[in-house]
Amino acid sequence: MSKISKIGVLTSGGDAPGMNPCIRAVVRTAIFNGLQVVGIKQGYKGMIENDMYEMGTRSVSNILNLGGTILKTARCLPFRTDEGMETAYQNIKAQGIDGLVVIGGDGTFTGALRFSQKYPDISVIGVPGTIDNDLYGSTYTLGFDTATNTVIEAIDKIRDTADSHDRLFFVEVMGRDSGAIALRAGISCGAEAILLPEKSTAMEDLIAHLKNGAINKKSSSIVIVAEGDKTGGIYDLAKAVQQEITHYDIKVTVLGHLQRGGAPSSFDRVLGSRLGFAAVNALISGQSQKMVGLEANHIKLTPLEEALSHHDFKLESDLLQMMDILAI
Amino acid sequence: MSKISKIGVLTSGGDAPGMNPCIRAVVRTAIFNGLQVVGIKQGYKGMIENDMYEMGTRSVSNILNLGGTILKTARCLPFRTDEGMETAYQNIKAQGIDGLVVIGGDGTFTGALRFSQKYPDISVIGVPGTIDNDLYGSTYTLGFDTATNTVIEAIDKIRDTADSHDRLFFVEVMGRDSGAIALRAGISCGAEAILLPEKSTAMEDLIAHLKNGAINKKSSSIVIVAEGDKTGGIYDLAKAVQQEITHYDIKVTVLGHLQRGGAPSSFDRVLGSRLGFAAVNALISGQSQKMVGLEANHIKLTPLEEALSHHDFKLESDLLQMMDILAI
Amino acid sequence: MSKISKIGVLTSGGDAPGMNPCIRAVVRTAIFNGLQVVGIKQGYKGMIENDMYEMGTRSVSNILNLGGTILKTARCLPFRTDEGMETAYQNIKAQGIDGLVVIGGDGTFTGALRFSQKYPDISVIGVPGTIDNDLYGSTYTLGFDTATNTVIEAIDKIRDTADSHDRLFFVEVMGRDSGAIALRAGISCGAEAILLPEKSTAMEDLIAHLKNGAINKKSSSIVIVAEGDKTGGIYDLAKAVQQEITHYDIKVTVLGHLQRGGAPSSFDRVLGSRLGFAAVNALISGQSQKMVGLEANHIKLTPLEEALSHHDFKLESDLLQMMDILAI
Amino acid sequence: MSKISKIGVLTSGGDAPGMNPCIRAVVRTAIFNGLQVVGIKQGYKGMIENDMYEMGTRSVSNILNLGGTILKTARCLPFRTDEGMETAYQNIKAQGIDGLVVIGGDGTFTGALRFSQKYPDISVIGVPGTIDNDLYGSTYTLGFDTATNTVIEAIDKIRDTADSHDRLFFVEVMGRDSGAIALRAGISCGAEAILLPEKSTAMEDLIAHLKNGAINKKSSSIVIVAEGDKTGGIYDLAKAVQQEITHYDIKVTVLGHLQRGGAPSSFDRVLGSRLGFAAVNALISGQSQKMVGLEANHIKLTPLEEALSHHDFKLESDLLQMMDILAI
Repeated sequence: MSKISKIGVLTSGGDAPGMNPCIRAVVRTAIFNGLQVVGIKQGYKGMIENDMYEMGTRSVSNILNLGGTILKTARCLPFRTDEGMETAYQNIKAQGIDGLVVIGGDGTFTGALRFSQKYPDISVIGVPGTIDNDLYGSTYTLGFDTATNTVIEAIDKIRDTADSHDRLFFVEVMGRDSGAIALRAGISCGAEAILLPEKSTAMEDLIAHLKNGAINKKSSSIVIVAEGDKTGGIYDLAKAVQQEITHYDIKVTVLGHLQRGGAPSSFDRVLGSRLGFAAVNALISGQSQKMVGLEANHIKLTPLEEALSHHDFKLESDLLQMMDILAI
Repeated sequence: MSKISKIGVLTSGGDAPGMNPCIRAVVRTAIFNGLQVVGIKQGYKGMIENDMYEMGTRSVSNILNLGGTILKTARCLPFRTDEGMETAYQNIKAQGIDGLVVIGGDGTFTGALRFSQKYPDISVIGVPGTIDNDLYGSTYTLGFDTATNTVIEAIDKIRDTADSHDRLFFVEVMGRDSGAIALRAGISCGAEAILLPEKSTAMEDLIAHLKNGAINKKSSSIVIVAEGDKTGGIYDLAKAVQQEITHYDIKVTVLGHLQRGGAPSSFDRVLGSRLGFAAVNALISGQSQKMVGLEANHIKLTPLEEALSHHDFKLESDLLQMMDILAI
Repeated sequence: MSKISKIGVLTSGGDAPGMNPCIRAVVRTAIFNGLQVVGIKQGYKGMIENDMYEMGTRSVSNILNLGGTILKTARCLPFRTDEGMETAYQNIKAQGIDGLVVIGGDGTFTGALRFSQKYPDISVIGVPGTIDNDLYGSTYTLGFDTATNTVIEAIDKIRDTADSHDRLFFVEVMGRDSGAIALRAGISCGAEAILLPEKSTAMEDLIAHLKNGAINKKSSSIVIVAEGDKTGGIYDLAKAVQQEITHYDIKVTVLGHLQRGGAPSSFDRVLGSRLGFAAVNALISGQSQKMVGLEANHIKLTPLEEALSHHDFKLESDLLQMMDILAI
Repeated sequence: MSKISKIGVLTSGGDAPGMNPCIRAVVRTAIFNGLQVVGIKQGYKGMIENDMYEMGTRSVSNILNLGGTILKTARCLPFRTDEGMETAYQNIKAQGIDGLVVIGGDGTFTGALRFSQKYPDISVIGVPGTIDNDLYGSTYTLGFDTATNTVIEAIDKIRDTADSHDRLFFVEVMGRDSGAIALRAGISCGAEAILLPEKSTAMEDLIAHLKNGAINKKSSSIVIVAEGDKTGGIYDLAKAVQQEITHYDIKVTVLGHLQRGGAPSSFDRVLGSRLGFAAVNALISGQSQKMVGLEANHIKLTPLEEALSHHDFKLESDLLQMMDILAI
């Protein structure tokens, strides 16, 4: 185990609220422990393009409540090549960096693992940062709680107008491979139906279910559709349902990128702080190629290799059951 | 002038935050003055279908902070026919209603004026309720302030993610004929460009302007497009700009119906209360076929006929000037 | 095991956001399973005063996003007497109630346990509802997440004015016996110091710590004080510190009851729904004298006797460590 | 009229949301017009202590949505002395500043007027920035709208818990000399009574009024008390009422400094932008010793001398009437 002396920190992939609190925790925990810290801009791109800067305790003042990431993030295809990795390695060696904290999702971890396998003198710790909550090894990922709150605030507003007009709304929320936001937001807002990538819904069942709601004299209905739902695009879906259910006026809203932003919730500020704190402590104690996560309210380290090999998350089974029962 | 004894109140057209505070003020001001009040459901439809109910002071408890309208709203084609009007008239006469407060926009007022001209024993007062702020006779209409705040909260969130990725966002906001929301939201969020129905923008100018922003090293840019903008649909617009400005990743968000809902702002609660209070007082003092509005922080009555004949609102000229200057 | 046919549901103790989603889940899960449900008003008081009403699926429409509790809550001294309990028992027997879901804290559970021990034909399940997060058997209690978010939104605002004036603020948050809100809010807002009932802080240490912050050129400082902190009342504390640190203008804010209200967060809506769903399922499966909780993201049943015998919660040790490190 | 070439901008007195948008507008409007801009820190203190810095368009990036003031603010007794003023004058002359935009309230304007009378080669324009809305010459002052929204969001939360417990809350809001926030917040939240500095309320009347509310079967009551109310401190008031109204549990909340902070509302962002834009244009066109204000939705210039001589604002008479009527 080589002792760490200088940590590089970066955010990569889609931005998520809670990344800034995490960066802050990394920087301050490192400095508290006598280490130096370098902020790497735009993820792996900053490593390759040598876009980095020394960070002090004041570099991270007043960022706890900011959405997004002060280090910025970007996709970086060159990092997938040997040449790109080599350039990145030379640049961070020149800076004296011997430990990396990478905040992001699957793609970020894949890059980090390959990099550290190729250059084992650089220790790497991953922090799960994605609003989609679809990483193995942590019950919650950074940004998921804030994004879900953003979604329910939007849907609460849509419900106001839906109720006033006796309308049926189809609302698309983020989640290309994961229905986590859709499921929690749906339970939170009393959605009449929730369409998830993990669970196929037959159009007839959806229509039967919505007709049943109408019979129960609901003044409005909300159907939440995760981006990655397989039933069909939300616009086609709405059109098909409109043909069967004519007494409701059907409208579509695609929430889009507003789901990524906003001041992080307390949950995400605390989670980001804990994970950043744990990531630096893991590096100091000689760990590498691990992801820090939160399970059962305790920090847990999972080998990146293991984290990356699991793609079969299960949505909470009680939530799936409640989905149909609570909207009666 | 016939003395009023029983007031019917309805909301019609698109719902707007502030309608509930207005209904509450109508009900309580009427009761305070010894009048009775009847709530008419779904606008003119409730008059025709006889869907009404007696309201007391407790009928409007705890609604000040609710978006939408507890009386619901709907479009009503039959009210445009003589038969529809006659049925409506018979129904409200049977209820003993001799004064109407109608909360809505242009279409609502047109119906109210025709109705009262046909049946002059029913006095009518209009209250400007539309988020678009495009009615003559009131500097602000109910819901405009709340909707603009909803828009800027969404755009502040989008800015977080735009900044993190160096992206350019096109954001569509409500306003089919009016750029009022787009203009205020654009000034409020520091939009790089604002496309309004009232002002044609050449594509070349937009592109030149955005390229200039890039030169100024902005990390992100927001372009706000009012629904009714004539430059072309927001998706085509974004595509055309992407071809010219390749170093930014361009994204589109259509905010949609979430703009209508939400707890009314203090401004809209106070405005709704003032206008509802004034509407009942106007009926009591023998007025009819007028709209109550707020100008220079005072209540003003405008004949509906006059209000309906003005369609040439001017957006504030200083705001139009600032549009380009402040985003440099 | 007697089969349950009619469930009574009540909220007792301090209100907490998430109680309404929980009531909704209890009602709808019961009805879905063919049971009847009775809402008991004002906790045990409603049992004694026979203030109850039959609830249907529509009784709980549109309450997911409401703070407080539609069933109301109250303290009830008579329920601590044998006569009070007997009256309560007669009343609910007359209603045909054979299962109770009681939502509240320690005091609520103590009453429920005694009642069910005395009248074992009434099955009882407790749901942890208190913003203080100080119950054994559930990592999170209903309302804690929302209250913490409310606190950080308030402190983010206070930070704005503190920064503008170079001020030091002492902010008191709820928590008579528990520092859970104070600790999480403090980490979330970057508080310079957090005073907790669980951990005594010497005045000299606090002053030394704050002086150190000043040396680090912070423009403002926030000290969070839990209600139950033993160092001395917040006003005396502020006065004592002001005498030692004269270059800051010290201000005190006591957040008070606004911490209890507000629309529940997604976390609390989901938690309330899960716990309510689980409580009814527990009754159906013949359980009694248990508390439903959430641990490691799974429902867990804990005997009320056991839950009530633990008073030695530990605040998360990593959070306690981070408290001093992250505010450097 | 001397042509202006370099503008100094400062904020003074209590901070108010909207100051940052105003600073941004001053800076960018000046630069757009070929002028230079200097930011003066901490109000007049920065003039005396020579704490200033050159500002460019990027100095005010991303501040539209920040509460407080990036220029900071402070009280400055030395500026009231001739020596202080002379030092300030020498410092800004050395910087080449010939125009000042001062954002603040009465005290700020008094200083600015005296300064400009003494040194007429420095043109001064005042911008009304105070949450209290008590300046002559502008219907709205910067920060008033945001502060009122902050207050009603807090009171909406308090109402949740008040309703759940059948409680009566006394809530103190800011306003030492002005009841503007109290009055608007009271109308917005349906307060049962509003105590204002401008209007004395006899204790017997208050108690009679509250007893009447109880008779009307309200489940909760909110009494809003402006800081400057003359009936007695809020704690004594609550105690006196509790003795007369025993069936309610009375609680007190003093909202305090959270009322000053927070992201400015759209209204305040637009207002700040308009006033900042107008202030620079006024300087350019040779004006001095004036305040820019907004009346009837248009910019208006008022001589500072005139603005300072009016202390008899009238709260809106319809709001005062509605105060009692709408809470029945």
